Amino acid sequence: MITLDTDRINSFLGESAPGEPNRETVLRAHAQLKSGSGPGSSFLGWRDLLLDPNDALLEDIVSTAARVRQNADVLVCVGIGGSYLGARAVISALTPYLEESDEKTEILFAGHHMSGAYMQELLAYLEGKSVFVNVISKSGTTLEPALAFRFLRDWLERNFEDADDRVIVTTDPEKGALNALRSDHPYKKYVIPPDVGGRFSVLTPVGLLPIAVAGVDIRSLFYGARAMCTDLEAVSTDGYHPALAYAELRSRLYARGYTIEALAVFEPKLSDFAGWWQQLYGESEGKDKKGIFPVGVQYSTDLHSLGQYMQDGRRQLLETFLMVRLDKSTIRVAKDSDNLDGLNYLAGKAYSEINLRAYEGTSEAHEDGGLPNMTIWLDQLTPAAIGELIYFFEHAVAVSGYLLGVNPFDQPGVEAYKKAMFRLLGRPE
Amino acid sequence: MITLDTDRINSFLGESAPGEPNRETVLRAHAQLKSGSGPGSSFLGWRDLLLDPNDALLEDIVSTAARVRQNADVLVCVGIGGSYLGARAVISALTPYLEESDEKTEILFAGHHMSGAYMQELLAYLEGKSVFVNVISKSGTTLEPALAFRFLRDWLERNFEDADDRVIVTTDPEKGALNALRSDHPYKKYVIPPDVGGRFSVLTPVGLLPIAVAGVDIRSLFYGARAMCTDLEAVSTDGYHPALAYAELRSRLYARGYTIEALAVFEPKLSDFAGWWQQLYGESEGKDKKGIFPVGVQYSTDLHSLGQYMQDGRRQLLETFLMVRLDKSTIRVAKDSDNLDGLNYLAGKAYSEINLRAYEGTSEAHEDGGLPNMTIWLDQLTPAAIGELIYFFEHAVAVSGYLLGVNPFDQPGVEAYKKAMFRLLGRPE
Repeated sequence: MITLDTDRINSFLGESAPGEPNRETVLRAHAQLKSGSGPGSSFLGWRDLLLDPNDALLEDIVSTAARVRQNADVLVCVGIGGSYLGARAVISALTPYLEESDEKTEILFAGHHMSGAYMQELLAYLEGKSVFVNVISKSGTTLEPALAFRFLRDWLERNFEDADDRVIVTTDPEKGALNALRSDHPYKKYVIPPDVGGRFSVLTPVGLLPIAVAGVDIRSLFYGARAMCTDLEAVSTDGYHPALAYAELRSRLYARGYTIEALAVFEPKLSDFAGWWQQLYGESEGKDKKGIFPVGVQYSTDLHSLGQYMQDGRRQLLETFLMVRLDKSTIRVAKDSDNLDGLNYLAGKAYSEINLRAYEGTSEAHEDGGLPNMTIWLDQLTPAAIGELIYFFEHAVAVSGYLLGVNPFDQPGVEAYKKAMFRLLGRPE
Repeated sequence: MITLDTDRINSFLGESAPGEPNRETVLRAHAQLKSGSGPGSSFLGWRDLLLDPNDALLEDIVSTAARVRQNADVLVCVGIGGSYLGARAVISALTPYLEESDEKTEILFAGHHMSGAYMQELLAYLEGKSVFVNVISKSGTTLEPALAFRFLRDWLERNFEDADDRVIVTTDPEKGALNALRSDHPYKKYVIPPDVGGRFSVLTPVGLLPIAVAGVDIRSLFYGARAMCTDLEAVSTDGYHPALAYAELRSRLYARGYTIEALAVFEPKLSDFAGWWQQLYGESEGKDKKGIFPVGVQYSTDLHSLGQYMQDGRRQLLETFLMVRLDKSTIRVAKDSDNLDGLNYLAGKAYSEINLRAYEGTSEAHEDGGLPNMTIWLDQLTPAAIGELIYFFEHAVAVSGYLLGVNPFDQPGVEAYKKAMFRLLGRPE
């Protein structure tokens, strides 16, 4: 169950002003999304795959993941943007911080930037290890992953006789450079549905394979998302839903000049989830010279970094806390005989309870300082809950984009730097 | 040598408008800083320590670090905000990404947040290892590090007979909880000068001890900063300097409605440096309902996440690239006989050169899209260059703050969440 607490945002909003987003326009956008009648509706495959689950595909991914886990010391996932942010988000949220195990497959990312130092150090690090590579790219020609894969493929072929068995490609059904490579190499292949954009692809093989290799139960993740999806499907003109309320409130604040949204977490495992959210929201809404600028912040760390600004800087931010009600940790503060640090007043309290009070204090102080904030609550950090949250944010961004009057499913601006870069690199036409 | 390339920002500025920051007001702010006559001038110790170096202190830190490196598998650095962001920034910039060495002391951070899951997993991870702790806090009562240190101290005392030799405190000369603890425990102690604020403390023992344990040459780092400092000292009313130009340009853009600054890196080792910069700028300027909101971005990763927004979203951003001219990596693209990936046009090119073209393409595309950008260039990623860069940004933020009309050395807003949190936790007065 995901809930939305709006207590500390209402004082900034009051009655809906004329022309501002409201429940009616939100429900209209929601209906557009459901009926596939809004802009970009040829890219709604992320909904279809939940409404009509492919259990055989999930099984197949689980079994490939088991093979990788059994044979690989390291899985290198090669991809950029939506081809790695979703996997990284879910893996960080649901696996331990620090783990030492010879039986575990370590997951590393590559091809999401072009640091020569990183590739050189990565190849040295892989030396002597059993390595598998999952290369994830619809076109196969996006330069960052294509370049990384050329180096890794060459390295695999020099180091393993069964190199072709160690590569898994996740790509377009037919087109592109990775399919061309498969004419010579019988790589295991997964398909990225053509009607699913990169930032919506975490519940396709793009995200699911690395997530399964990390040991996360992808069935629970997937069916958690499906539950949220069917929940929202049931909402029609006479109901409402936290995901719709979230879209409405942030859109209303944007209309009033709050042009930056901070997604704030108090559990560091959710920091990478904020990174996924940043792409989802920034790329869906940031166009036509419009949109909220999304930024992830990790508290309480960032209260001692951006906190001063949040409390008292230029009033241009709104804040969404992403909180987990039940932390599974069990440690509690012990009483100290000397109490030289003065913390005995906390004796008996759970660490996680103190963290919750830090959240409450922050939420209160920020409202007082003129920073409107709301809170999305998860019950626990489980695969099902993370699945629910993924669909919650996906549905809400589509509705938000429609409210803003943009196509939330394209990203024409991403081509601009590529075009200039390719010209500078002298790429043939 | 640090240089500033302003080619892609000039078209957004033209002649200085009346009342806008200009070279004259910048030089006035610079003179105020040098003479210690501006707001907050009792917190200029970060300048004094460079103008009058304490070599004996540097030697002492180097020798403590050698002892830690010799005896510790893990050093846990306990601190929040300025008590860890500087160390993390320098260590990430100057040490390898992935390294396996039994001889190396692993550096972990704690006390920068209050996740119960993290502390529980950390204590389990430390089991069986030789552990040292560096606790860094001026007051010793900031809750996040104080709480973490209570758990770690208890763990050390249960696991090691020489627990007291394994703790190093970095704190106020006389006051605070950590000095109180020293009445019972003869911990090695380093002093945080009272006239140096947290975000300016990386070149005091706060940053230098962890950095030295990571194997970085702190003398070169320190003297690099000193060189930049004396360079700027030599600038008076008839000269100029890239650090002053940086302060001027960002301040002029702020006056014209560019209220977010992205510090963009193409080398992931500099991402944590952007985290340090975020605190330095956000906390120094974000007050009195004013200031640029600072955000670090890592390219080209984030071009596939925030890139769409940068290129075509709401025009409220300015961008500062932080680039390194000479990457030490040596790998080059090889020719492939089949060329199925179509990348042979890059054959012979260095990986790092392709990354530079990505930067150039981005800078050009962003100017075209209406995103003013400038570039700070480092020659190489060396301790001396990072030292220079630290002082460059420190000096520039002081000047920027004066131009904005705020005290760049206080952070009153950080108390607000603490106050509410302590009330909710029932802390005795």
